[in-house]
Amino acid sequence: MNSTSPASGPIDSALAQALLSPRSVALFGASDDPAKTAGRPLKFLRAAGYRGTIYPINPNRDTVQGETAYPSLASLPQVPDQVFVLTPTDTVLDAVRESARLGVKVVTILASGFAESGPEGAAREAELRALSRQTGIRVLGPSSLGVIHPQAGVMLTANAAFAEPELPQGRVFVASHSGSMIGSLVSRGKARGVGFAGLVSVGGEADLSIGEICLATLDDPAIEGYLLFLESLRHGDKLRAFAIEAARRGKPVIAYKLGRSAVAAEMAATHTGALAGEDDIADAFLKDLGIARVGVLEALLEAFPLARRMPLAQPGGQPRVPPRRVGVVTTTGGGAAMVVDQLGIRDVAVEPASPATLDRLAAAGIAVSPGRVLDLTLAGTNYKVMKTALDIMFGAPEFDIVLAVVGSSARFQPQLAVKPIIDSADSAKPLAAMLVPDAPEALAALTAAGVPCFRSPEPCADAIAAVLARRTPGTQPAARLTGERPPRALSEAQAYAVLEQLGVPYAPAITLPIGGPIPALPFDYPVVAKVCSPEVPHKTEVGGVVLGIRDAGQLNSALATLKTNLAERAPTVRCDEVLVQPMTRGLTEVLVGYRIDPDAGPIVMLAAGGIWAEVARDRSIRLAPVTVDVAREMIAEVKALKTVGGLRGRTRGDLDALARAVSALSQLAVRPELGIAEAEVNPMMVLPEGQGVLAVDALVLTS
Amino acid sequence: MNSTSPASGPIDSALAQALLSPRSVALFGASDDPAKTAGRPLKFLRAAGYRGTIYPINPNRDTVQGETAYPSLASLPQVPDQVFVLTPTDTVLDAVRESARLGVKVVTILASGFAESGPEGAAREAELRALSRQTGIRVLGPSSLGVIHPQAGVMLTANAAFAEPELPQGRVFVASHSGSMIGSLVSRGKARGVGFAGLVSVGGEADLSIGEICLATLDDPAIEGYLLFLESLRHGDKLRAFAIEAARRGKPVIAYKLGRSAVAAEMAATHTGALAGEDDIADAFLKDLGIARVGVLEALLEAFPLARRMPLAQPGGQPRVPPRRVGVVTTTGGGAAMVVDQLGIRDVAVEPASPATLDRLAAAGIAVSPGRVLDLTLAGTNYKVMKTALDIMFGAPEFDIVLAVVGSSARFQPQLAVKPIIDSADSAKPLAAMLVPDAPEALAALTAAGVPCFRSPEPCADAIAAVLARRTPGTQPAARLTGERPPRALSEAQAYAVLEQLGVPYAPAITLPIGGPIPALPFDYPVVAKVCSPEVPHKTEVGGVVLGIRDAGQLNSALATLKTNLAERAPTVRCDEVLVQPMTRGLTEVLVGYRIDPDAGPIVMLAAGGIWAEVARDRSIRLAPVTVDVAREMIAEVKALKTVGGLRGRTRGDLDALARAVSALSQLAVRPELGIAEAEVNPMMVLPEGQGVLAVDALVLTS
Repeated sequence: MNSTSPASGPIDSALAQALLSPRSVALFGASDDPAKTAGRPLKFLRAAGYRGTIYPINPNRDTVQGETAYPSLASLPQVPDQVFVLTPTDTVLDAVRESARLGVKVVTILASGFAESGPEGAAREAELRALSRQTGIRVLGPSSLGVIHPQAGVMLTANAAFAEPELPQGRVFVASHSGSMIGSLVSRGKARGVGFAGLVSVGGEADLSIGEICLATLDDPAIEGYLLFLESLRHGDKLRAFAIEAARRGKPVIAYKLGRSAVAAEMAATHTGALAGEDDIADAFLKDLGIARVGVLEALLEAFPLARRMPLAQPGGQPRVPPRRVGVVTTTGGGAAMVVDQLGIRDVAVEPASPATLDRLAAAGIAVSPGRVLDLTLAGTNYKVMKTALDIMFGAPEFDIVLAVVGSSARFQPQLAVKPIIDSADSAKPLAAMLVPDAPEALAALTAAGVPCFRSPEPCADAIAAVLARRTPGTQPAARLTGERPPRALSEAQAYAVLEQLGVPYAPAITLPIGGPIPALPFDYPVVAKVCSPEVPHKTEVGGVVLGIRDAGQLNSALATLKTNLAERAPTVRCDEVLVQPMTRGLTEVLVGYRIDPDAGPIVMLAAGGIWAEVARDRSIRLAPVTVDVAREMIAEVKALKTVGGLRGRTRGDLDALARAVSALSQLAVRPELGIAEAEVNPMMVLPEGQGVLAVDALVLTS
Repeated sequence: MNSTSPASGPIDSALAQALLSPRSVALFGASDDPAKTAGRPLKFLRAAGYRGTIYPINPNRDTVQGETAYPSLASLPQVPDQVFVLTPTDTVLDAVRESARLGVKVVTILASGFAESGPEGAAREAELRALSRQTGIRVLGPSSLGVIHPQAGVMLTANAAFAEPELPQGRVFVASHSGSMIGSLVSRGKARGVGFAGLVSVGGEADLSIGEICLATLDDPAIEGYLLFLESLRHGDKLRAFAIEAARRGKPVIAYKLGRSAVAAEMAATHTGALAGEDDIADAFLKDLGIARVGVLEALLEAFPLARRMPLAQPGGQPRVPPRRVGVVTTTGGGAAMVVDQLGIRDVAVEPASPATLDRLAAAGIAVSPGRVLDLTLAGTNYKVMKTALDIMFGAPEFDIVLAVVGSSARFQPQLAVKPIIDSADSAKPLAAMLVPDAPEALAALTAAGVPCFRSPEPCADAIAAVLARRTPGTQPAARLTGERPPRALSEAQAYAVLEQLGVPYAPAITLPIGGPIPALPFDYPVVAKVCSPEVPHKTEVGGVVLGIRDAGQLNSALATLKTNLAERAPTVRCDEVLVQPMTRGLTEVLVGYRIDPDAGPIVMLAAGGIWAEVARDRSIRLAPVTVDVAREMIAEVKALKTVGGLRGRTRGDLDALARAVSALSQLAVRPELGIAEAEVNPMMVLPEGQGVLAVDALVLTS
């Protein structure tokens, strides 16, 4: 398997075909009772008018729901494209093995009881993976409720929600870790006039992951975008490959990911068996790959049209200034203030109209209250006033996107202030609408016209913020952990040698043999002496650091102290050397870290140093490598660095040098020849402006 | 006016009658065209079947909408209870004056153009206020869209949204700064099965404020709770009086307040002419008065039934442990995880079931996945399983409140997992439900049964968090600024005398005449010397502090330096004294402040000291006075204090002493005889555990 169609580069269209448009399916363990879970797929396929061949398999019956039943996979007249295994956990592996033997392309597993359920389940899952790897059969699940592809009449699911009559079709494809959520999204989408081009419940992702499945569908012209419901970040490499290709094709990806709170992260782990990583790493991962991460469920359904109107730059292309400036026009000051407030909470500032724009409005006879939004007041509840105001805003260079907030008239008189928005659907500038009253008909009309529209202030602000927070994905091949051997620590001196190669500044240092004479130092006292050994990554824990050494005599006794401490607290450790450095004081200290995250891949982190790192989660994360400009954005996100950013006459720190150092360290992601899994400079001293930064300790792990 | 019914204490039922149940109304400037703003009130009153007398007033017509029109207020056959002034701004004052002359009780003003619109408007508003004060006529507005009281057929509004057919009646009363929002809330409520007992658009609150209006309605048995839409915190004293009485009667108050973001606070100021205070002060004010502040619009409509099920303790009564522990049961792990995540973001932790509860579930044959929520999985989509699980949770002492999250079955098979929730509506413990799919019928059935229920995870978590965050209001009379004279600063020595009276510890200090000899000090060197004068509240700005003085000689030259600095930098200032204190080092420093906020009244604040106060808004605020226990809660809210809270073996600070000091300073709120408007201890040094805290500088302003 893993066949690749030559026309579409990495896109596995054969997988897409077998998974989403199978010409034949076998329902392994199909029940005669259509109300039972194992009876639903047959009922749903028939109700949806599936045009392929269906083989119910049930060794205990001649017919299932009136159709011929087959006793086994081997007894089928042909090899089906896909087998949906509906039988209990303990029968699954045999069914998969038999499917693989026959040459089935895709097998979907409904049962749970794999990695999420203890050692026995984990062993079962390992066997499942091995089967897939050895035979090439692709596995969806376990715990998958199946796939839905209305265009092909494929309603191959056990989710009761798909008894839903008149499912609207749409342009977006849904991939979800949660099987029940695909049903809930369908009903919520229907209520909102949003249909889907397809849905897949990926379950435990033992083989096929969200990224790989979505990637396989990218050349389907009926699919114009993607909604992902993620319980955790898993199979990041596949998700990355998909996101980059999606960005290339201008197909937006919107994601809702659980785990913002610590408790939910813990739940995701128990619920799915996945190791839930830290949410801010996942957040950086999604944004850096151009995925709009929404935080409000309703925004997951509402964000696509806006994201579609605001395509990302081409991955790996010239960087451009991202759109950030939102102009708001309204007929209701109180209603607009709710959205502005919600945008503000999400760090999206509403841009006031320029004097030139206000002049143009005045020339058109439109009076606006002074302030940050264009408040047309009740007078704006008028087609001509609203249309003219919108047209002037589309021409105003200070706005990247225009948001119209419409009050009560939207409910019964949409011709007044909603119609002009609909008539602006093809405006040169992105346009969105938020309706303050309950106004389902106006909302439906806006949706049908393709205008991004929102029924509440929170999803409106959330969707706008999520779309604006996307960053154009880079295309560097990501370093990966081989997992072949456990990471190994370098000594501090060896770590500095790595920093040297990267161009990350560090404090001068020499090493001395632990028992030898004290030479003249190449720098002034006072100095610090530290044990220097790959076997002592955490020096202070073994009393391995002596600070404030003022002369050679003190240095000599410091070395003796270090030797004694090591002998007492870490007698088995081998350590021949001591590292000596001048004492360095900076304006402030930070932590700069690089590591290959098992889910997200290479990341770079900048964090507040010292005690603040412990009490406040004050840090910024990006996928590595980053440019110096991106490192500057990271610096702006760390609150502690405001203290050296020119606050009220305080001495400025050399934040340019810090940005260069962060960027330099992050280049480890594209220097696989160095074989580094993790590098943490802590502390990195930030000196006054023009004097640079200095690493004064570093821990580096090779992979 | 301001008459007080003897039976109901402070409650002005005559005001409620004239405002909400007028026996007669005059529509000043009523238009013949029912589609025009000034024509709507007549149309709406008739459509609503208003049983009182309506007097349209229009000097240009004999009839208005087919009814007899009167040329003036004076020409009416009786004095109406209320006059709704529908004419333009420049005619308003005359109409109010004439109404007052005739003895009208309440006049409602539609026009804008008052305090929000520049100096001319401000003068107009001042005159309006004076008129009301002098004559006793009560004024609703300006910028009021009127009042709606369906029970009395009163649809006295110019808001076009009230053309709505079949408005549902309900049990909650809405008061809103925004006139357009009352219409939007009605339509949104209708869509959600929520009706209202009445609505009032208060506009600019030139006279009648939200607090006073709501207070007046408190004895109406048809009103069981209140929803407030606040653009800013205004007339806090009235709101406080209302909130305390509402809590006494067990009538919950839910508020949505704009201004969480800086931009929205700025907008509220331009939109309404009000000075928008700091949002965290307003937040503390609302919570301390037992008002549930929601952050999501939909929660404003959905929170009432839950708040009703969880009444506050009696104001001023015995404190009790507030309910905090939420137990969650679900048929869908993914759906429940969304709510748990949103609760976690809002600092509400979901409580896991105890072993005893798990045993009882197991004994009842109910298997649950391990983890923080009771995940019944698909097996829970069954009446008996869900009902039994709920009953066991109601009996489990570890839960204060039970939340049931129901998956896809809620849409078409509510009898399975929704019905058992409805059948538990009268449970001994508060119960709420959240439905993951779109399930309007199940939602309506839950709403009709009085079960708090939610259609999305964010409003669900928001409402629960807001209800749990309420604190029982205190009943101390609040100190108020007289505004008679501007605040006046005390010298540092005088400020310590105030701290002495309150029992707030401060560093030993003596004052020396600025030119005199240096005596023996009652404490050891090193010391600090500071100019000491009420005229120099900010000493460092004039070079008025010398640190690290090691002996009498240095002290002598320090005094000379201070004298020189003062002469150079503040030549007009009178200063005869210098204050001398020992140098004090604490583990950390904080700011403790008290002030009478113009909106919120007396507040006490605890904030991170030093540079962190500038870069991170790390502070906790409460209405003053606070007990030592409440001060401990405040300490727990200030992140910086985690550094002295026993983190990883660091020295603990004396946080008990800090709590006592915060509580002591806050007693200024009930010590009006001291005449203090503001007191700020900055820094307050926190010493190691057992050694207390010490104020080492203080600024006190008398009122």
